[in-house]
Amino acid sequence: MKRIYLDYAATTPVDKRVSKEMEPFFGFSAQGGPASGWGNTMSLHSFGQEAKIALENSRQVLADIINADLNEVIFTGSATESNNLALKGVALANNPPAGGKGHIIISSIEHPCIIESAKWLKKQGFEITKLPVDKYGMINPEDVRKSITNKTILVSVIHASNEIGTIQQIAEIGKICKEAKVYFHTDASQSFGKEKIDVKEMNIDLLTASSHKIYGPKGAALLYVRKGIILEPVLHGGGQENGLRGSTVNVPAIVGFAKAGEICQKEMVKENKRLAKLRNKLIKEVLKIKNSHLNGHQKSRLANNANFSFDFVEGESLLMQLDMQGIACSTGSACSSFKLEPSHVLLATGLRPEQAHGSLRVSLGRFTTEAEINKLIKVLPKIVEKIRAISPYGK
Amino acid sequence: MKRIYLDYAATTPVDKRVSKEMEPFFGFSAQGGPASGWGNTMSLHSFGQEAKIALENSRQVLADIINADLNEVIFTGSATESNNLALKGVALANNPPAGGKGHIIISSIEHPCIIESAKWLKKQGFEITKLPVDKYGMINPEDVRKSITNKTILVSVIHASNEIGTIQQIAEIGKICKEAKVYFHTDASQSFGKEKIDVKEMNIDLLTASSHKIYGPKGAALLYVRKGIILEPVLHGGGQENGLRGSTVNVPAIVGFAKAGEICQKEMVKENKRLAKLRNKLIKEVLKIKNSHLNGHQKSRLANNANFSFDFVEGESLLMQLDMQGIACSTGSACSSFKLEPSHVLLATGLRPEQAHGSLRVSLGRFTTEAEINKLIKVLPKIVEKIRAISPYGK
Repeated sequence: MKRIYLDYAATTPVDKRVSKEMEPFFGFSAQGGPASGWGNTMSLHSFGQEAKIALENSRQVLADIINADLNEVIFTGSATESNNLALKGVALANNPPAGGKGHIIISSIEHPCIIESAKWLKKQGFEITKLPVDKYGMINPEDVRKSITNKTILVSVIHASNEIGTIQQIAEIGKICKEAKVYFHTDASQSFGKEKIDVKEMNIDLLTASSHKIYGPKGAALLYVRKGIILEPVLHGGGQENGLRGSTVNVPAIVGFAKAGEICQKEMVKENKRLAKLRNKLIKEVLKIKNSHLNGHQKSRLANNANFSFDFVEGESLLMQLDMQGIACSTGSACSSFKLEPSHVLLATGLRPEQAHGSLRVSLGRFTTEAEINKLIKVLPKIVEKIRAISPYGK
Repeated sequence: MKRIYLDYAATTPVDKRVSKEMEPFFGFSAQGGPASGWGNTMSLHSFGQEAKIALENSRQVLADIINADLNEVIFTGSATESNNLALKGVALANNPPAGGKGHIIISSIEHPCIIESAKWLKKQGFEITKLPVDKYGMINPEDVRKSITNKTILVSVIHASNEIGTIQQIAEIGKICKEAKVYFHTDASQSFGKEKIDVKEMNIDLLTASSHKIYGPKGAALLYVRKGIILEPVLHGGGQENGLRGSTVNVPAIVGFAKAGEICQKEMVKENKRLAKLRNKLIKEVLKIKNSHLNGHQKSRLANNANFSFDFVEGESLLMQLDMQGIACSTGSACSSFKLEPSHVLLATGLRPEQAHGSLRVSLGRFTTEAEINKLIKVLPKIVEKIRAISPYGK
């Protein structure tokens, strides 16, 4: 059975063009061959300097994509690490004008790594505010303005939701933060490579982007840090990345990340059009199922995301039945798939716990075909019907 | 010109057997092919479960090598991250019996990531003691015993020095820590895969091992954490690695790490014999140069490490001259190569700053041949002579 992967928001396979680019940096031709770049970027000899050049070239490619300067891009090992560094890094190195420990504003639909970092900071004495969202998962920028106090040092709002795909009004929030002289971070793990991002135009001070969500390898991510912002490192070490991130630099993964970013940037408009068309067909057909609902915003939404709720249906059962048919989807974020609690994102949009439990995230990607979507459209109604028939909630 | 790499302590090329093992996990055959394993380990569907199985198989391979249990191995992104997690994780989650903030003992020859983590903890109110070493870079286990107070929560001593190769009496130190009921961490980044390690026999509570030092990919490392030890995560996130390390799990890198560990374990005895023979020849010949010295211990030393000092010679000049001849060596650790300060490790062994500045680390590896060593033996005396001739210190 040929399987169908519709969970591109969880992770993506590495594009062959990317893995080809990475190859020489693993050291395949290390022994005497011309290819190199597998050295330690901190080494002074030619092997090290070749790696260093590849690193800086990759940095430039990614900086250009978001309209940042070369030295404003810091490489990390994961979006989780970038998000930890943004929150803890700013909090531990910056005091509010009013003195004492700072106040940090996040939204109620952030990724767990933002929420858990904020929780940890709360334990250290920082004040945390969580912004509400409307039923489409949208934050009202005015709520950001109202939440800022003379203790506020940072606002962190996810650019596009990993669960429901809702795209926030980042430029508006950025403008408010700039006026209030508060740093603004956005977790763009799901939007980078899929939506146009300009950190200058959008008044973004810190931005997280990830490689493995855009057909690059796992193990590479970046944190854009606007010039002049001081951070406390999360990984203390040997001075790499301007002293902000200790660890031997993972050049092969970074080279792959840059190539992946380049491809996405080039193909973005065309690919978004293709995916939105497939996705819209899927939404139209799935909503024909009785008592089904679309979660998230209708328009301000990632082109590859669909998120449904089915009354009287448990998301886990749905997922398992689909998996048995060779179709891989998700109930929400991969990170919380082992938890029994309903999605905090769906609860924040006002869904009742039993509704949030009945959710299905379908995320399309580069290798998704119309035939795959047609297959899902064909099998899903039958599966929902089957589960409802044995549901204790009846119908 | 065929270049010669003699800086295997900084990083290693990925062995072809390792990269071949990693391939399917990048997703090359993602679209319909049988190979898989590139999924997100947190996903419930088959793509996720295949990745999860590969992850746990790799964990078992590496746990077996150090005689640990499966759940005692936590994967991280780098040895720096493992070391940060060991120090900060223990310090932030464990109070001494005497109450208040704990006391941590490290050695004076640790890697910068241990030293910088300890410095950060000191800023947070923790007490830090740095143990001295003798002229061979050896710690006296009795010094550990004497330094332990009723506030001590952790002792961290590097297993084998990344600069001078000296191997510490880890089992003795472990025994002392066990008797004193203090946790014992060792940074085995340089020794894992090169020396036999048994965490049970050696009374090790936490151990750091790295992939890219043993012909595995960059971006993977582990922290062994003995059952029952509570840590505060450094990267807060989505619950991966038993809640101890948020981030999408880098399965391809971890699969490569396990394969690399397996190969090292299998070839260790034979390879150490081969390398020690080459290294000893090198030492014997280099010490014929007037006013040259071997740094580190003569016997308790990594088989692949040689570290020399040459009076009246700057290490950087030596390195540059060798690089021009196509030979890549190092003055000390790669991490500190951009600093102008002399090596803290060599200073700790009692060298004067000008002597420490004149050091040369030669680290051999899997692809080192006798011809390469002969080449170095041939060119080094001439280079030293040339530099001395123009040295302001004269000779």
